[in-house]
Amino acid sequence: MPEGTDGCWVGFDLGGTKMLATVYDDDFRPLGSKRRKTRRGEPLEVGLGRIADTIEVALKEGRIDRSRIRAIGVGCPGPLDLDRGVIREAPNLAWENVPVKEYLEKRFGRPAHIANDVDAGVYGEYRFGAGRDARCVVGIFPGTGIGGGCVYEGRILRGKTSSCMEIGHVQVMPGGPLCGCGQTGCLEAFASRLAISSLAAQAAFRGQAPKLREIAGTDLSDIRSGALAESVAGGDVVIEQILRTAGGHIGRALAGIVHLLAPDVVVLGGGLVEALPKLFCESVSEAADRNVLPSFRNTFAVRAASLGDDATVMGAAAWARHLVGAEVSHHAAG
Amino acid sequence: MPEGTDGCWVGFDLGGTKMLATVYDDDFRPLGSKRRKTRRGEPLEVGLGRIADTIEVALKEGRIDRSRIRAIGVGCPGPLDLDRGVIREAPNLAWENVPVKEYLEKRFGRPAHIANDVDAGVYGEYRFGAGRDARCVVGIFPGTGIGGGCVYEGRILRGKTSSCMEIGHVQVMPGGPLCGCGQTGCLEAFASRLAISSLAAQAAFRGQAPKLREIAGTDLSDIRSGALAESVAGGDVVIEQILRTAGGHIGRALAGIVHLLAPDVVVLGGGLVEALPKLFCESVSEAADRNVLPSFRNTFAVRAASLGDDATVMGAAAWARHLVGAEVSHHAAG
Repeated sequence: MPEGTDGCWVGFDLGGTKMLATVYDDDFRPLGSKRRKTRRGEPLEVGLGRIADTIEVALKEGRIDRSRIRAIGVGCPGPLDLDRGVIREAPNLAWENVPVKEYLEKRFGRPAHIANDVDAGVYGEYRFGAGRDARCVVGIFPGTGIGGGCVYEGRILRGKTSSCMEIGHVQVMPGGPLCGCGQTGCLEAFASRLAISSLAAQAAFRGQAPKLREIAGTDLSDIRSGALAESVAGGDVVIEQILRTAGGHIGRALAGIVHLLAPDVVVLGGGLVEALPKLFCESVSEAADRNVLPSFRNTFAVRAASLGDDATVMGAAAWARHLVGAEVSHHAAG
Repeated sequence: MPEGTDGCWVGFDLGGTKMLATVYDDDFRPLGSKRRKTRRGEPLEVGLGRIADTIEVALKEGRIDRSRIRAIGVGCPGPLDLDRGVIREAPNLAWENVPVKEYLEKRFGRPAHIANDVDAGVYGEYRFGAGRDARCVVGIFPGTGIGGGCVYEGRILRGKTSSCMEIGHVQVMPGGPLCGCGQTGCLEAFASRLAISSLAAQAAFRGQAPKLREIAGTDLSDIRSGALAESVAGGDVVIEQILRTAGGHIGRALAGIVHLLAPDVVVLGGGLVEALPKLFCESVSEAADRNVLPSFRNTFAVRAASLGDDATVMGAAAWARHLVGAEVSHHAAG
């Protein structure tokens, strides 16, 4: 390829509460970055303009001329039309049919691609983090729901038009608790941070978790990852049991995924895992190993994500680079 | 590529009871074929010799000189070492560490590849049968166990060294019946032909399935696919219920797979499905649709396999061709 080494790659993470743009050089060193709050319910054009402006500020911060941009990758929530680069629905932003790709390509005159935000995060971990260079990486991110993604032999597994790997809605117990999706017994209904917080609130209410009650009370909205970690550290044994049981459910669901996809690395991420990495890796790994066929035992490593908030933005940029066919391996030799 | 149009491709299906070799031309029309019984417990060299001899007979039948062979593909049971082309264990044949690839490459002087037999069958259906040209095909084959495979964007999904897609051992009910693998509640324990036959035998024993009792008695070994189909046709309502319930379990497991891989086509195959295609396609499809997120409803077609016994041998040959990088698309234009 004729390009010099001064091309750069833009990653963007469009979250429900914040957006983050980072510009990377050819070796994926960050050159400039800008974080902003996302505003819910803005008109489409205004919101798209804010995304582009955030990229412009990141470029300015890195003193990078926009002509150096080779491609832009955007990690997005919600059901997507990956090929057309449209967010079909982003309830957190109150947006529908957002033509992200078209808008950014017009504005910057360079190829833009969108990816599911969790998929982008798993790809980031595969390229630069806890799943580096693995043949098959499965990512599981327990949050309000439970997100999942898979990078198989260098490619993000996807559905026909949108992403797949809806790990949160794999059924782990027929007739189990009602899930937000309307089904019963989904993994999310057992092991999302929301499900965990609600069990923790009950324990606090019953007086079985004095530390948690002291620091967070019994309101689900206040029982966040940090409070749960502090409660465990402060001696609330019941909260630790609740968390390990949730990890066990994730491990059982993971066993099913191991039977299907035989990953070598499983990356756990999100705020809850960041707050309690050892507890989650242990409980998930033990339950998964206990529930797989003997031939699959010890064939996969369960690791905490290592890139934190940068996984999605870095992965989105690297995936856009993969899609424009300019992988490091192809021109690093030149 | 320099080759003319007179190359040919050898497919081989190494089953526990029979082996089948078929030689195909470049358009995958069969030129010659030979079927033989498999002999359990033969010394390795004798067994490998029998495989090669069967191929020779198929070549002779088609009046094909062995110099025309471009590649050989072998569908094999058991855990495999795909890259080295070794069957690690084939309990049905009482064989271990069988160097299929090395033996055939020495004997014929052409590239040979092995694949899991179910994977080869699913690839056959993807290339030539019920899953033709789909983006993602999942195959489910209920037999003594339940085999599974997936062709994703033209490639067989595989594990690090062996195959994956162990659909039969995905847990569908915690604490459910004991499976042959030692776990509980696996899909196989609910919906394999063996599990179905055992429920059917109980119904016959209790006098609830008079037709089945008349034609097959209460011995599991005699209650095979044909007997079950005849029993349903003869009015044994309980047997139909047992079969539909088993289809429902497969459908629920399939819902989990749809959440993960978002296939567009699901192919059901094996003797039981061949005997009762409508009953299985309906019951599996209904249960899967009922158990997926609304966004996945009606996104996948459930179809009976259409190649029968030829799926594995044809798929093995076509997959070997894919692996040697001479896909139709590459030279058909020339």
